[in-house]
Amino acid sequence: MNVALAQLNYIPGDISYNSGKIITAIHEAHSMGAELVIFSELAVVGYPPLDLLNMHDITSGCMKAIKEIASHCNDIGAIVGGPSPNTGVYGKAFHNTAFMLYQGKVKAMVHKTLLPTYDVFDEDRYFEPGDTFFPVDFKDLSIAVTICEDLWEEQPYGDRGLVRLYGLSPLEEMMRHKPDLIVNIAANPFSHNKIKIREEIFCKNAKKYNLPLVSVNQVGGYTELLFDGNSVVINNKGEIVKRLPFFEESLTLIDVTEITAGNKKELKPVKSESANDVIPIVHKALVTGIRDYFTKSGIKKAVIGLSGGIDSAVVLALATEALGKENVMAILMPSCYSSSHSVTDAVEMANILGIGHHIVKIEEARAAFASMFEPFFKGRPADITEENIQARIRAVILMAFSNKFGHMVLNTSNKSEAAVGYGTLYGDMAGGLSVIGDIYKTEVYKLAAEINSKGVIIPQNIIDKPPSAELKPDQFDTDSLPPYSILDPILYRYIDMERSPSMIISEGYDADVVKRVIKLVRNSEYKRRQTPPVLRVSSKAFGSGRRIPIVAKY
Amino acid sequence: MNVALAQLNYIPGDISYNSGKIITAIHEAHSMGAELVIFSELAVVGYPPLDLLNMHDITSGCMKAIKEIASHCNDIGAIVGGPSPNTGVYGKAFHNTAFMLYQGKVKAMVHKTLLPTYDVFDEDRYFEPGDTFFPVDFKDLSIAVTICEDLWEEQPYGDRGLVRLYGLSPLEEMMRHKPDLIVNIAANPFSHNKIKIREEIFCKNAKKYNLPLVSVNQVGGYTELLFDGNSVVINNKGEIVKRLPFFEESLTLIDVTEITAGNKKELKPVKSESANDVIPIVHKALVTGIRDYFTKSGIKKAVIGLSGGIDSAVVLALATEALGKENVMAILMPSCYSSSHSVTDAVEMANILGIGHHIVKIEEARAAFASMFEPFFKGRPADITEENIQARIRAVILMAFSNKFGHMVLNTSNKSEAAVGYGTLYGDMAGGLSVIGDIYKTEVYKLAAEINSKGVIIPQNIIDKPPSAELKPDQFDTDSLPPYSILDPILYRYIDMERSPSMIISEGYDADVVKRVIKLVRNSEYKRRQTPPVLRVSSKAFGSGRRIPIVAKY
Repeated sequence: MNVALAQLNYIPGDISYNSGKIITAIHEAHSMGAELVIFSELAVVGYPPLDLLNMHDITSGCMKAIKEIASHCNDIGAIVGGPSPNTGVYGKAFHNTAFMLYQGKVKAMVHKTLLPTYDVFDEDRYFEPGDTFFPVDFKDLSIAVTICEDLWEEQPYGDRGLVRLYGLSPLEEMMRHKPDLIVNIAANPFSHNKIKIREEIFCKNAKKYNLPLVSVNQVGGYTELLFDGNSVVINNKGEIVKRLPFFEESLTLIDVTEITAGNKKELKPVKSESANDVIPIVHKALVTGIRDYFTKSGIKKAVIGLSGGIDSAVVLALATEALGKENVMAILMPSCYSSSHSVTDAVEMANILGIGHHIVKIEEARAAFASMFEPFFKGRPADITEENIQARIRAVILMAFSNKFGHMVLNTSNKSEAAVGYGTLYGDMAGGLSVIGDIYKTEVYKLAAEINSKGVIIPQNIIDKPPSAELKPDQFDTDSLPPYSILDPILYRYIDMERSPSMIISEGYDADVVKRVIKLVRNSEYKRRQTPPVLRVSSKAFGSGRRIPIVAKY
Repeated sequence: MNVALAQLNYIPGDISYNSGKIITAIHEAHSMGAELVIFSELAVVGYPPLDLLNMHDITSGCMKAIKEIASHCNDIGAIVGGPSPNTGVYGKAFHNTAFMLYQGKVKAMVHKTLLPTYDVFDEDRYFEPGDTFFPVDFKDLSIAVTICEDLWEEQPYGDRGLVRLYGLSPLEEMMRHKPDLIVNIAANPFSHNKIKIREEIFCKNAKKYNLPLVSVNQVGGYTELLFDGNSVVINNKGEIVKRLPFFEESLTLIDVTEITAGNKKELKPVKSESANDVIPIVHKALVTGIRDYFTKSGIKKAVIGLSGGIDSAVVLALATEALGKENVMAILMPSCYSSSHSVTDAVEMANILGIGHHIVKIEEARAAFASMFEPFFKGRPADITEENIQARIRAVILMAFSNKFGHMVLNTSNKSEAAVGYGTLYGDMAGGLSVIGDIYKTEVYKLAAEINSKGVIIPQNIIDKPPSAELKPDQFDTDSLPPYSILDPILYRYIDMERSPSMIISEGYDADVVKRVIKLVRNSEYKRRQTPPVLRVSSKAFGSGRRIPIVAKY
């Protein structure tokens, strides 16, 4: 039997767009010779819909869309994800459901049982879990349909290794009925340190039950969350025999007889991507994240403050790749503290990329503010106030270009800065989207090398110079912070791995440095609360996956 | 038996502070003659701890603190809330537990079963539910100990009325063992439209089971969430016989024999507060919210941009009440578009309150930016860009005072503006805390009247003038928005009641106006993502209780 995997890019809440896309793919799959086509989790509404699920018109629209989609499934079956009303006497209003559509009707519904509620996931907020476990029959196939987490009886949990979060395994329950095939429809967000774990879970299950497994993931950027697609087909020996592309839509046909080992037409295993360097995939992820954030918001153009430093250079390169050079504008905003190479390096880069740039010196505004504050600040030494004013003048400039020309400001802060609060609120922390806010400074250099791997885009001088905010004479990041080679590993352990200060110190890091760094992280929660959404590429980004009270003491 | 209710104000994560406070109250209760003292939910760690529960040092600290507290419970029993490790083979790492402490030991633990995961609550994120239901024995009393939601089998759900979210009732289960008393330890956040519902749920249960009920709630401001205290004692007829104060700490003694109807010493029912006007309680809530946000952050002083309009006037009055006049500074930042009364009214109000103020004219900075942008914006008409620049200059000024003198900037946007995006990001939307961001404009006037009820604090002219942003000549809010008397009811229906546009139109609101308003709300999600925490006083505030994807189309 020919089965098509539909790895598509949806828009949350846009039911008519999503269902139109699904219907088109159904017809296309049919014309490719597919008997069944599989879509991802909550495809009809886009994942994550969040509190759009509290809106009557959206949820009722989803059920109408499912019926409409079913009417296109006459000679072809489709498995489509969407919310369905909970008809029980108690519980949350919806199930997270896989609809089996065939012969113009909804033939079966499978409700997700394991509802992830940790990190960026809030599924218990919306859904009532399923509690019956039967495979779905389609023609002569008995299919164990699972929805994302239903296949993940064990969860990777930082240092704690694999943790059993749930008391039951829907897949195990379904195995009593001896299905022929496992299908997993998913909305599995990308994080560079989870690619391998995800593959392992899929392969382990296929092998354990000696059944082929087809997983279909959504693809694209959804505010913070990026979905890599990377849908896979796995044979009953637990080998990946087909992989759909990273960060691209795909409608791919597979003959299910080819994924059972020992068959004549058995497909050969494909190479695992997980062993490879993740930086190229992160690169793709960020480009996708920018592109989809703009496209889905209906905005075409970006404006970026180009300082001559590495962070804004990397963001500029990524934005240009995502949006096209005609849609990106760089603004250089030198001050009296800017080094001469700041401007020349930035101009050189804009020229390499072929993007437009303007130079707007901030001195006039700085002088105006200095004069305005003179009566009030008289006799007080210059301090962080004056540094922040410069950063905020730059934000006023970028936002003015944004307002006047309709460009969105891209934020250029990295994860190290965001972590320790080394940035100015309403200054360099401003923008519509934080592109590299989940990339530590030491990783920014790797990304720069990757960007330059097919020819110089970022001038070497930008990569080589020591990091500086250039807000006062001869200022370097290391004046205020430990070197990034020490800072970043501490931050990674504290934030990503959720290790305690004492655990980090016991690994050999200097106790005073660890305490100072963690204090900086804790004291800057209030700043991070007001920053733009951060494209998430790790398993612990700032944003909805990390929720710390501002008012706290610890 | 004498029982003490300890309604206290905690600091999230500050285990030594919280447990010190608990121990002091235990000794005080003992000296008052109490045999048992009851604390609120998760008292040891403060509610909500959020992802502090992912931090090893904090959770292990909680268990140590419980043992330490137990060592002070020799001649007195205590019921104390805190997280306890889940010792089962699967599930979340913790239970949300009520510890029964007596004779120096943990005598019993009751785990919360119903874990609210909706609106501002995320308890499924952290806790594994309890699954055994036994009363706890203390001396000759058998106590049905419940934790907050455990008593709420039914949930008020906007228009949907009471919804049964859970398939079981822990209280009902415990009734098989015929307890003598119901205790509910809670962290029940304040919302002005839930006070009555909460009382009704408590009273209904007491009456249904013919048992007295003692509820203990925490009190104070916890970032967005405000806790009113308002702990109550209810007799077995379902009448409230004792109420602890709103928004104040209290250690109150009650003789349990007095709360059983028919007893000689039976306490008389107290008046319900719920029937009263909620505005005075909202007033108290906001003052508490400001005070605790500052105190718990270790900040003393506030700076407020005083425009001469009603919003900043109300915030100034509330801040002065919360922090003291010596800790509040007003900055007047007139432009060429400011009416003369803007300055005179603002100065008058600062003088009434006796707070310091500075006048910083923005013209110099405005002219500097105009000159800087001239080469780039040449030939283009003035538009929203120039209006936003003024608002952003004001934010630069306020933040400069904040940086120079250590004051926190208080944001003065109201809920109507926040809803429709009538505000400038990094301009008037800036600040450390949004004081009235959950108060619609029409309610701001009621609050102003309440503030003035004991003597004029806000000059009448500020109350009487038509709302204006004063960013261009003769500008009024009604140029861009429907009158607030129409706007606010639409917003309330859409945001607070989660009604669909078609439902609102069917109530008789003009279809075009409804569609335009809702479009404004939907298009300003990105702005709200970057605003400061909002003190929550309604049942649906902007913030963690309302999670809408930015990238969406609906």
